[in-house]
Amino acid sequence: MRKVEVIGVGMTTFGKQTDITGEELGRQACWDSILDAGINARQIQAAYCGHVLQGPVFGQRVMAKVGIAGIPVTNVENYCSSGSTAFREAWLAIATGQYDMVLAFGAEKMTGKVRGAITPAEEDLEAQLGLTFPGLYAMRARRYFEEYGATPYQLALVSVKNRKNGTLNPRAQYQREVTVEEVLASRPIAAPLKLLDCCPISDGAAAAILVNSRTARRLGIRGIKVGGVALTSGQLEGGYIDMTNEDMTRRAAMEVYAQAGAGPADVDLAEVHDCFTIAELLRIEGLGLCERGEAARLVEAGVTSLGGRIPINPSGGLLAKGHPLGATGLAQVAELVWQLRCQAGSRQVEGARLGLAHCRGGSVPSSEGGACTVILLKK
Amino acid sequence: MRKVEVIGVGMTTFGKQTDITGEELGRQACWDSILDAGINARQIQAAYCGHVLQGPVFGQRVMAKVGIAGIPVTNVENYCSSGSTAFREAWLAIATGQYDMVLAFGAEKMTGKVRGAITPAEEDLEAQLGLTFPGLYAMRARRYFEEYGATPYQLALVSVKNRKNGTLNPRAQYQREVTVEEVLASRPIAAPLKLLDCCPISDGAAAAILVNSRTARRLGIRGIKVGGVALTSGQLEGGYIDMTNEDMTRRAAMEVYAQAGAGPADVDLAEVHDCFTIAELLRIEGLGLCERGEAARLVEAGVTSLGGRIPINPSGGLLAKGHPLGATGLAQVAELVWQLRCQAGSRQVEGARLGLAHCRGGSVPSSEGGACTVILLKK
Repeated sequence: MRKVEVIGVGMTTFGKQTDITGEELGRQACWDSILDAGINARQIQAAYCGHVLQGPVFGQRVMAKVGIAGIPVTNVENYCSSGSTAFREAWLAIATGQYDMVLAFGAEKMTGKVRGAITPAEEDLEAQLGLTFPGLYAMRARRYFEEYGATPYQLALVSVKNRKNGTLNPRAQYQREVTVEEVLASRPIAAPLKLLDCCPISDGAAAAILVNSRTARRLGIRGIKVGGVALTSGQLEGGYIDMTNEDMTRRAAMEVYAQAGAGPADVDLAEVHDCFTIAELLRIEGLGLCERGEAARLVEAGVTSLGGRIPINPSGGLLAKGHPLGATGLAQVAELVWQLRCQAGSRQVEGARLGLAHCRGGSVPSSEGGACTVILLKK
Repeated sequence: MRKVEVIGVGMTTFGKQTDITGEELGRQACWDSILDAGINARQIQAAYCGHVLQGPVFGQRVMAKVGIAGIPVTNVENYCSSGSTAFREAWLAIATGQYDMVLAFGAEKMTGKVRGAITPAEEDLEAQLGLTFPGLYAMRARRYFEEYGATPYQLALVSVKNRKNGTLNPRAQYQREVTVEEVLASRPIAAPLKLLDCCPISDGAAAAILVNSRTARRLGIRGIKVGGVALTSGQLEGGYIDMTNEDMTRRAAMEVYAQAGAGPADVDLAEVHDCFTIAELLRIEGLGLCERGEAARLVEAGVTSLGGRIPINPSGGLLAKGHPLGATGLAQVAELVWQLRCQAGSRQVEGARLGLAHCRGGSVPSSEGGACTVILLKK
């Protein structure tokens, strides 16, 4: 396997953007990444596009607007892990020597397409009976409370932290801090989850340009190195049997640590898939960043805040930055690249050398339809 | 690049299958391919799933039913080239050394989801004004008539040939021959195209298991070799400027011939994307199997019939076999494998050594959203 580097990233502002098409969002992010890398767009040999709701051959439509139509484009979909799966396929294509420069991008125009809670699988009987994503994560939260004595107050602290981080990120959807009281007093969604425990509906796009290290050197660019990428799918064990176990996450993390020759103790910051406050806690544990049942106390102690030992979601995460499905994984990559380049401004994690990005999509316990990615980037 | 072989294929019957889910169709095709290869399903290291309409993480849901959930699964979408793109990504993953055994499958349950003509892009203004796929191909047919003096009678002959081939394929949707008179008298869809010039709405699935040659030898299996795989996307030149030029097809074919060290004269049979009768003619020319403007006369002379010099769509093609979007590319692969193994029964192409499969999806002239794949398989 050849060494791979990220030499350019781009990201639109996330939020409700009713006046702009998904194609245009994608175009903006792709061009941001091209300009960031300082390359000629014609050097890009292939592209992978992650999206969920944008309709057939969306990636090709974006590439035509970018102005480099004609190259091989593959649309990939792994629900909330779609963008990170596009990153993974691009990484594979370069690591294995198929191409020297590949564009990975993701975009989602959700407003006008999605109303209310999205479901793991539309035709799933359980989803029709109420097992939407909020319903699913509410069950996991209740179980977590039961097993570890965690509280709604501790969940709310995750939202407070990420909303605070979001105010330091000009591309985040929400630019206002919230208090614990506000979170607890916000509209109930699925007990114990309140509105401010849930990530919003968002429009946005993000992109990254990957090359092999020799190409980076030839171009005179010092890229951010890809330490490892893993993709797992759901197994029975992660479903009904143990609802607070992030099985897919755990397996992906073990694989990626092995690839990078690193362990959780080496991770300086992580962008994790906080689609709900409870999700961030479960993922911190699944990634091995702490023991099971310990995450709520870590958040309370400030360990995961900016300035803490292991800042989680310095970008604001899905809760504050927003969650345009296909864009999310690549927005995480963009954040890590900015952090590792020391370009993250007022939310900079000091001395960051190893960053982790985690996405997890789909998965109803009974159908095992889920995908999880973990990406390690290093200085 | 390592040499890659197809060691197992599977395919459900294509047709209207209202009582069965997309997941179950996928499961059947995957298991057919596993049994055909004679492997243990647990040896499969990763999977690529091609589909268009089956909703998020469909591939993962199928794999859970196959019984090998947990491995990396990537859903890919390139409209009518989705299945062949899944094949391409699986081929890449093995050719480049990432994995030794990968499952590529595609499935589509269209009944209940699609009514009437599908459009290149739902939100496209031109599509809303009538530029559905039948509208688009009707324009191309008129232009072809104008440029080369071809006739509706010659178009009808494509349908007659493929419907006849379909009667020799027990998995084909249509099992009845049609006459030129029936085609010409069938309901007008978009002049000059009649109902029997158009492929149907279908449900179905197909799958293939790919390994590197060393693995095939270790398993004691003599697979069908992958000679080359190419993926292109649309460029402006292929759109408005020259409507009878299959630009994406031409570029993909040139690439794949170069990979295989072969030319169009070496091709013994081809499965091409005959979504409409006119499409088969345009593709035969785009693939270099004859000169531009010559295909209609070739069909009339029986050159593309079973027993002719270069049989096109011996399986019945999309017109007779059916076209469950994501399954089509892999059904073409299955047909080539059976033909090259001399297992095609009464539709066997004698002495077939090199087979070509061609898919093309999407593409409105004005938006360039299109994807095209060409695959070469050899004995």
